[in-house]
Amino acid sequence: MKRVGILTSGGDCQGLNAAIRAVAKALYEALGDDVEIYGIKNGYGGLIYGDYQKMKKNNFSGILTIGGTILGTSRQPFKQMRVIDEKNGIDKVKAMKENYKKMGLDCLVVLGGNGTHKSANMLSQEGLNVVSLPKTIDNDIYGTEMTFGFQSACDIATEVIDCIHSTATSHRRVFIVEVMGHKVGWLNLHAGIAGGADVILIPEIPYDVEKVAEVITRREAQGKGFTIIAAAEGAISKEEAAMKKKEFKAHRASLGYPSVAYKLADDLREQTHYEIRVAVPGHFQRGGSPCAYDRVLCTRLGAAAAKLILEENYGNMVAVQSGMIVPVPLSVVAGKLKTVPVDGELVRSARDIGISFGD
Amino acid sequence: MKRVGILTSGGDCQGLNAAIRAVAKALYEALGDDVEIYGIKNGYGGLIYGDYQKMKKNNFSGILTIGGTILGTSRQPFKQMRVIDEKNGIDKVKAMKENYKKMGLDCLVVLGGNGTHKSANMLSQEGLNVVSLPKTIDNDIYGTEMTFGFQSACDIATEVIDCIHSTATSHRRVFIVEVMGHKVGWLNLHAGIAGGADVILIPEIPYDVEKVAEVITRREAQGKGFTIIAAAEGAISKEEAAMKKKEFKAHRASLGYPSVAYKLADDLREQTHYEIRVAVPGHFQRGGSPCAYDRVLCTRLGAAAAKLILEENYGNMVAVQSGMIVPVPLSVVAGKLKTVPVDGELVRSARDIGISFGD
Amino acid sequence: MKRVGILTSGGDCQGLNAAIRAVAKALYEALGDDVEIYGIKNGYGGLIYGDYQKMKKNNFSGILTIGGTILGTSRQPFKQMRVIDEKNGIDKVKAMKENYKKMGLDCLVVLGGNGTHKSANMLSQEGLNVVSLPKTIDNDIYGTEMTFGFQSACDIATEVIDCIHSTATSHRRVFIVEVMGHKVGWLNLHAGIAGGADVILIPEIPYDVEKVAEVITRREAQGKGFTIIAAAEGAISKEEAAMKKKEFKAHRASLGYPSVAYKLADDLREQTHYEIRVAVPGHFQRGGSPCAYDRVLCTRLGAAAAKLILEENYGNMVAVQSGMIVPVPLSVVAGKLKTVPVDGELVRSARDIGISFGD
Amino acid sequence: MKRVGILTSGGDCQGLNAAIRAVAKALYEALGDDVEIYGIKNGYGGLIYGDYQKMKKNNFSGILTIGGTILGTSRQPFKQMRVIDEKNGIDKVKAMKENYKKMGLDCLVVLGGNGTHKSANMLSQEGLNVVSLPKTIDNDIYGTEMTFGFQSACDIATEVIDCIHSTATSHRRVFIVEVMGHKVGWLNLHAGIAGGADVILIPEIPYDVEKVAEVITRREAQGKGFTIIAAAEGAISKEEAAMKKKEFKAHRASLGYPSVAYKLADDLREQTHYEIRVAVPGHFQRGGSPCAYDRVLCTRLGAAAAKLILEENYGNMVAVQSGMIVPVPLSVVAGKLKTVPVDGELVRSARDIGISFGD
Repeated sequence: MKRVGILTSGGDCQGLNAAIRAVAKALYEALGDDVEIYGIKNGYGGLIYGDYQKMKKNNFSGILTIGGTILGTSRQPFKQMRVIDEKNGIDKVKAMKENYKKMGLDCLVVLGGNGTHKSANMLSQEGLNVVSLPKTIDNDIYGTEMTFGFQSACDIATEVIDCIHSTATSHRRVFIVEVMGHKVGWLNLHAGIAGGADVILIPEIPYDVEKVAEVITRREAQGKGFTIIAAAEGAISKEEAAMKKKEFKAHRASLGYPSVAYKLADDLREQTHYEIRVAVPGHFQRGGSPCAYDRVLCTRLGAAAAKLILEENYGNMVAVQSGMIVPVPLSVVAGKLKTVPVDGELVRSARDIGISFGD
Repeated sequence: MKRVGILTSGGDCQGLNAAIRAVAKALYEALGDDVEIYGIKNGYGGLIYGDYQKMKKNNFSGILTIGGTILGTSRQPFKQMRVIDEKNGIDKVKAMKENYKKMGLDCLVVLGGNGTHKSANMLSQEGLNVVSLPKTIDNDIYGTEMTFGFQSACDIATEVIDCIHSTATSHRRVFIVEVMGHKVGWLNLHAGIAGGADVILIPEIPYDVEKVAEVITRREAQGKGFTIIAAAEGAISKEEAAMKKKEFKAHRASLGYPSVAYKLADDLREQTHYEIRVAVPGHFQRGGSPCAYDRVLCTRLGAAAAKLILEENYGNMVAVQSGMIVPVPLSVVAGKLKTVPVDGELVRSARDIGISFGD
Repeated sequence: MKRVGILTSGGDCQGLNAAIRAVAKALYEALGDDVEIYGIKNGYGGLIYGDYQKMKKNNFSGILTIGGTILGTSRQPFKQMRVIDEKNGIDKVKAMKENYKKMGLDCLVVLGGNGTHKSANMLSQEGLNVVSLPKTIDNDIYGTEMTFGFQSACDIATEVIDCIHSTATSHRRVFIVEVMGHKVGWLNLHAGIAGGADVILIPEIPYDVEKVAEVITRREAQGKGFTIIAAAEGAISKEEAAMKKKEFKAHRASLGYPSVAYKLADDLREQTHYEIRVAVPGHFQRGGSPCAYDRVLCTRLGAAAAKLILEENYGNMVAVQSGMIVPVPLSVVAGKLKTVPVDGELVRSARDIGISFGD
Repeated sequence: MKRVGILTSGGDCQGLNAAIRAVAKALYEALGDDVEIYGIKNGYGGLIYGDYQKMKKNNFSGILTIGGTILGTSRQPFKQMRVIDEKNGIDKVKAMKENYKKMGLDCLVVLGGNGTHKSANMLSQEGLNVVSLPKTIDNDIYGTEMTFGFQSACDIATEVIDCIHSTATSHRRVFIVEVMGHKVGWLNLHAGIAGGADVILIPEIPYDVEKVAEVITRREAQGKGFTIIAAAEGAISKEEAAMKKKEFKAHRASLGYPSVAYKLADDLREQTHYEIRVAVPGHFQRGGSPCAYDRVLCTRLGAAAAKLILEENYGNMVAVQSGMIVPVPLSVVAGKLKTVPVDGELVRSARDIGISFGD
């Protein structure tokens, strides 16, 4: 009898249920009645506070296309994992190990992003058998070319830019679409290219507002009355990039803008005479049914994770490398961030067709 | 030989090209080479400043599904129509009449919303032959049950709420989706119902933030960890509704929020312990391909407008009444607003299934 | 205590769950714990064979957007309702009345199409309290301007034509898209107009294959290399329309085509030198999430049905008339078909913009 | 001055315009007024018969999202390239070389699939400078991991299966969805996995109809009333696979089915008592706007093609290998087919989660 616990942690994204389903189906297919799967609720929280339940086979039916996660999720910052929960008198790491034992688990399957993988690695080092899957719309997990959720979010962000494109062509206006991505620009870079944005602003390439304004003016001179700017949530000006982190946070807070698009809009209003409109699709980008690409990816990753469990090959994240599914040690993944290479082929391709990065 | 000018005015929406196409196809079909169609650029601006061109038959091919308007559009506030353009030394109304004559028009076809219809009525009273079509995502034009663009915008706003719904179920959070609609709540009411929002805030029903907070708390008590609030751009609190317009504007400006959703989020943060997320899809809602419903409506309205021209039955807007396409005199339409009846069947249906309007 | 049974019958369509949800939510909202809802499985079959269960409040949560029906459905031809089920020794009508009593129902809510309404009327005449909702992608239920499911199916059929349009423009080809609708042409008429079809063939207007070929030839002469034909499943040639029903069926069977589009393709191949391609999207048109329009309609109809139950106003279908929700006696609805008026405004609008009906 | 000709050949797919745009934009961006681009109409046909035109810069604007190809396309079988067109007295290869010279081209850019690449390689060997891009919904071009069009077609085929899934769950039925792919099963394999099909039939794995019927029966025994079969156009039974090609063709022709799905339906009707429904979305799968993934891929491939032209590195196809864009010699690509590895990771993943291939 194999006992497997499964949890989803961190911000949710499309494909979580598709991946959960693939892990479960592959385990049931291989082991039949010789496997028990425990659904751990709301991320590491459920493992800490003992909120879990034995799943039935049909819990995993009909969930392939459903957004969100049937297990619930929560953010449990890695930094606080070692901090005692004074209120409930709980040593979190100890509690997780105890609940792991209480369930009699052979393995814990973790679906999560960067923060999640730090904790997953820690649990692995603490002696738990862990297998993880790379989940995030940000595509910023080290060790894998692709994370699930990313392509689905990209479809949505692109649809937003598309629709705004059609309205933009009818008016003389500048539109700023704020695409998710605080630390990395993958999503905005892909969606900006796919949506035909004129300017793409990503955290990895600090922008100069005058350069952005120049694009608007140049397009006007070419008889193009509108400009579309795709700005990542984490887009940052050159001045801001030169600040220390603390200083930068204070600076942004002092301005009082709810997010970067509104700040950029005001900055551009000072530079041009154009009407500027802002769209902030927000969590829209994380929700809904996963796209076909993600469902195939989730199925492959889920089947690969099940295979690692069957082989008792623990301590790994299943990853995409050169298009193939491979295991990567959690210790290699944890604590690193996969950012957009500023001189990489994708940024260069974008520049080659005339897209500005505002630099 | 019949000469027909056509222009689109005001904020753009889905279906403008579909409607233009239907007018043109129906005229060509009925009159063959005995009709000339002039495309007037960028709304009334093109009529004032003489920016127009004779269209070819194939200009109207392949545009059924295209968002925006092939003629361009602009906002020309009705209040300033009688104001002389000092810079260019132009009496706008006079100029429009002169350009109408210069083109030798038998009729001017105008596609627009509320402001547009005031000007259309004025031009009709000034002696021009005018036929108009009701265009707006707001569905607020008096004299017609439905305007084109509305249903397409509703599809988009609903999709946003849908996706956020799936992410909301995975977290314990409150989401505010700001749906277009400054003066009327039709779009938000329909999208809110369609998206399964828990709270719908519309300009016609001022809200009480404590009542909204109560919904969140009640849902929590029922074991539902999330709440979705669909707020129209023009949603307004009871306190604000009691203010004079000037006072209200000053109040809102003093708060510095870019739009109502951010204000509501802060107000709710004071009342509850929930994390609150905001999505502002903005002009995304006006763009892209019209939905099937709107394309059929545009075709019917366009064919009806062409018929009015053939019958020389001018001074009318083509409208939907009891599901049928009928002409309504511009004088009846102009200057009125079709708001959501606060005790109407739609609001009652929403209340009947447990949706709160925050009142 | 009120006890309400609910069943869905006939071919499924989008919006069934949205309508079920609205009925249930409105009943719970009005009656709280003073209502019990029984879910009857697989249409009238569940009522006949006693397959039903008491529903819980949360069974109706999260189903607004889900395609299909949580209750299951089946076809129980009206003609066989009075026929004894010899195999199981069951008098169906008697059994339905007995199970109605066994559940202690105050009312039976029926969601269905034309066949379903014949049986609903019969049950009403047999003394059961019945309230019904008009469900079908065909929009052919007498007494209501609109049925739910129709607009969602129309969106899908239009999307198919749209995509084929874009591929058609690149090749010199004729495309036939077979749209659902055996007896009436509403769906194909709307989707054909919305998708910009060149020819629309519906059961109400028998076609002449030479007239269809003429359209192809004329378009070629105009430099348009492709033609798109939207053919309803029930499209019929003039020769076939002149046959008796039995004769017609034998004729079609003798040809061996799986459906009309393939027959038409071969007939056109004899008339033109064009390559002809066929698409038969089939049940794709009935599935998936209901569109925003249908969700609002389902909510209104469901709330209205609940109101009839609260008022004990039985024996009615909730219907749309002049845009308003009204009750219509089942006796008025049953046994009639709402076909496309061949000289109505919609067909005329289509003809006005140059669409051929092949007649 | 650089002169570049560009043509699209073979069956169309999504992303052709996006790729054309990227090539053009990258050339204009690098060379400004020092480049002339010739649009060659309707594939190799335009090159043979001298149907081309000098493009303007703005011909490439606004086409990113448009389905089909602005250049038109046609099928020019490779086998007939060397055959003299007797009717017009034209030696095709000679004519292509002459028109290439007449335009004064430095390079010919070819977007096409397998057949197209045979001709592209031949023209390269004949001394023309050729750069090609891999276009096909089939993803069967040798030398590249991915072709553009594939992912967009996969989205559509998946959407069809999704919708049928929701209707299937409401009825006890078997649904067969026929997905494009005559020679290879990539599209059906991906769409089948993404859509949650129970059985996937691809040309590479001949099926046994009794094995397919067993899946239906087994699912029934498990209480699952429906089964979804995704069948590639080129799906083939074991008996048929054993036939010689000529014999097979005669066999299929003798049966008279318009396509494989109808044959399979009849075969299964003999094996089971289930109602069976068929959907054949057909060219729907090739049309419409490219998905975000394809647009990014087209942009990358287009920019890479332009770079090859700037570097005068001719005789290559731009390809994806290990996720990177690389040139592959046409001689390596031509005449080979990339089929689904029957023991590859993707097929195994599908089997691992319980999908049957009917073998």
